[in-house]
Amino acid sequence: MSNSEIDKFINEISKLPGIGRRSAQRIGLHLLKNKEKSLNPLLQALNEAKKNIINCENCGNIDTKSPCYICISNNRDLRTICVVEDVSDLWTFERMGFYNGMYHVLGGSLSAINGIGTDEITIKKLIERIELHNITEAILALSTTMEGQTTSHVIADKLENISNLEITRLAQGIPIGGEVHYLDENTLNAAFQSRKKIF
Amino acid sequence: MSNSEIDKFINEISKLPGIGRRSAQRIGLHLLKNKEKSLNPLLQALNEAKKNIINCENCGNIDTKSPCYICISNNRDLRTICVVEDVSDLWTFERMGFYNGMYHVLGGSLSAINGIGTDEITIKKLIERIELHNITEAILALSTTMEGQTTSHVIADKLENISNLEITRLAQGIPIGGEVHYLDENTLNAAFQSRKKIF
Repeated sequence: MSNSEIDKFINEISKLPGIGRRSAQRIGLHLLKNKEKSLNPLLQALNEAKKNIINCENCGNIDTKSPCYICISNNRDLRTICVVEDVSDLWTFERMGFYNGMYHVLGGSLSAINGIGTDEITIKKLIERIELHNITEAILALSTTMEGQTTSHVIADKLENISNLEITRLAQGIPIGGEVHYLDENTLNAAFQSRKKIF
Repeated sequence: MSNSEIDKFINEISKLPGIGRRSAQRIGLHLLKNKEKSLNPLLQALNEAKKNIINCENCGNIDTKSPCYICISNNRDLRTICVVEDVSDLWTFERMGFYNGMYHVLGGSLSAINGIGTDEITIKKLIERIELHNITEAILALSTTMEGQTTSHVIADKLENISNLEITRLAQGIPIGGEVHYLDENTLNAAFQSRKKIF
């Protein structure tokens, strides 16, 4: 592949998350081999997404309109807010279907290494929403990574003094289907400390 | 993800080879989250590739010009032609660097299931090139899949009567680093039948 234009093309594809050099080559060649059937529809989809898909100014979800379809729904519990890191987490909750409240997408979690401070994620907006709509429960559904837990702590601290607000987090323990002897120490410890009475 | 536009967008990404639903979601969200830094450069690269990258009318390689940089090179053996299925195979040979002849990219291999007959791949063009340039060796470097081997046979048949042309194929046997007890029967059989004398 001595041609710099082709190289640049493949290189741009390989920047996508989870795509290595080999996959990028495969995808690139596939697109060039099927300009009509693959490259054009992809280009069109990307162009339309660029133009039409926007962030909900309220919750941070993505949609073709703002506020998004969840924020304007009449069938949801307006007093509960589930705080997630990213839109993909919101999608996971929606796919499960057991939650029927509102969401707040932070847009990431605090990370000194990646230069993400409290101003880079939408904590301020979250507090505004909670105060404005008299939210009664804020569920912090963040990852249990270092960054996620730091973010949870920071948010919990900031919400602590809002009256009539319950702040909760996801339970920590053994994943369903998990085997005890494969668990890491931290999970096992958390599961042990939060053990529940059966009888 | 109840929004059909977002769904369509993710769907288009998931059509790329090797990209499942989950990866497509991840890539799609990444692009939407970074319109300036990711979506725009990707769009630009796709547009430029669409416009500038073409097939070499001679060998079937891709390049920004036709004939491609290999076909116009002064430093290559013009009498040897290596027949490959796809551009990625050509790239593999070029990366290795031990081959210095010309190429012929078939654009696939014969496959009744996929509706690829002799007119869908560039066999006719291959014969023309071999006759026109007095090629002395045609190396059939096709896969040893069912389709690849069928294609090799068909091509070998068609080239058989061209005078002064040697038709060769890649050696078949144990891959380097391969362990005998993991080999499939066909490979082991091929390796055994083609055994070579050491002393």
